[in-house]
Amino acid sequence: MTQRLKVIGNYISPYVRKLLVCLELKGLDYEIDPVVPFFGDERFSQLSPLRTIPVMIDGDLVLNDSSVICQYIEDKYPQVPLYPTDVADRARARWLEEFADTRLGDVLVWRLFYEKGIRRHVFGEETDEAVVNDALERAIPSALDYLETQLPAEGFLFGALSIADIAIACFFRNAAFVRYTIDAQRWPRTATFVARVHALPAFQKLAVFEERSLRVPVPQQRELLIELGAPVSAESLSGTTPRKGVRRIA
Amino acid sequence: MTQRLKVIGNYISPYVRKLLVCLELKGLDYEIDPVVPFFGDERFSQLSPLRTIPVMIDGDLVLNDSSVICQYIEDKYPQVPLYPTDVADRARARWLEEFADTRLGDVLVWRLFYEKGIRRHVFGEETDEAVVNDALERAIPSALDYLETQLPAEGFLFGALSIADIAIACFFRNAAFVRYTIDAQRWPRTATFVARVHALPAFQKLAVFEERSLRVPVPQQRELLIELGAPVSAESLSGTTPRKGVRRIA
Repeated sequence: MTQRLKVIGNYISPYVRKLLVCLELKGLDYEIDPVVPFFGDERFSQLSPLRTIPVMIDGDLVLNDSSVICQYIEDKYPQVPLYPTDVADRARARWLEEFADTRLGDVLVWRLFYEKGIRRHVFGEETDEAVVNDALERAIPSALDYLETQLPAEGFLFGALSIADIAIACFFRNAAFVRYTIDAQRWPRTATFVARVHALPAFQKLAVFEERSLRVPVPQQRELLIELGAPVSAESLSGTTPRKGVRRIA
Repeated sequence: MTQRLKVIGNYISPYVRKLLVCLELKGLDYEIDPVVPFFGDERFSQLSPLRTIPVMIDGDLVLNDSSVICQYIEDKYPQVPLYPTDVADRARARWLEEFADTRLGDVLVWRLFYEKGIRRHVFGEETDEAVVNDALERAIPSALDYLETQLPAEGFLFGALSIADIAIACFFRNAAFVRYTIDAQRWPRTATFVARVHALPAFQKLAVFEERSLRVPVPQQRELLIELGAPVSAESLSGTTPRKGVRRIA
């Protein structure tokens, strides 16, 4: 019998989303402790040396880093494969996942979503408009110019849906949270590709929890998610006061 | 017949070193274009969207990101396996590789080696002593405290030598370039572990090219390496003028 997997990390995080989409697609049983890393307590620091999310617990095994965890899930539960079979395609898929995790994470999450969303609503600070404007005018277009050369006009990157499609689409959810839309005239492949992946049932199911999480302060998210039927764990590692200085993500 | 693999990237880079050690251990035939990313020309930008090294070319396939490339090498050339067989150990090995690539990269390379080495010798700027002091007093000890809880007193992390041992040891080479030594009283496991991995023939072979590369200006490295018998490629993507703004590495 497979025991229930435990995910530590909030529905708002693109890295947590990547893992949850994989778990949903593979039909695995899991529960979630929707910790926001800024709020994690000392037990969270013990489980996550870099204070990143997601953390995944499978019995005695504690794992960090979304890419490491997703590959572990694939290795241990190969049904519904999410990595291409061909060795070269598999490497290209991992590269595009890495591009999403680092470059899209930088331009869409840290320079846009963090500035317009987290900074204001979690820390009560002003958005740095210069950072946002530079992201919108220069950094995001540069990343999208590259993606446009990589993405297919129809379907997914490597035939069947893979970790690369999932990872890329996850970051555009966070951009959408602060009302960013992809200019379909300028980046038609990227715009239709992202819409296609977001329309998948796994993304749609999680979107309900994401959108509701965004509307309440962090300390109230847990109760709301339970009401909505999210698989929230009984125990939590969340503290009640945010701490800054956590910039690296996983 | 296996064609010769091509590696783009300098012997000084810990990420390039990780790949080269894997290639040496697997006995694969390769050539190297010892580009320093700050000097790469426009063709380099085309092959490396984030201007990171290493890039690896295997026939028509161009790959970026050292972790992606090393995993590809393992998948395609499984002889002399460098990833643990056990699924949980394999995930833990990948996590420790990621910890090395991000956290050790940050504290040992960017805050220490870059400040004391690259900044002065490539860009002709002054070292920021505040950054170096903070690294030595706080950031590096914190990372080593974690490593000390993970590393074995003898042998390697997962029995046979793996990507985790290699990755961790690679970063301490760069620290050694600027005369950093691990305090063996405070971190005895880390100190002996790193010495043990550095003593492997693959590390020793590369060390010759590393040490000589450090002693000459970038534009003269290529010729010197050829004299030393390094497998330097006939073509080069290196320009002659450094450009800044490349902070992310792979």
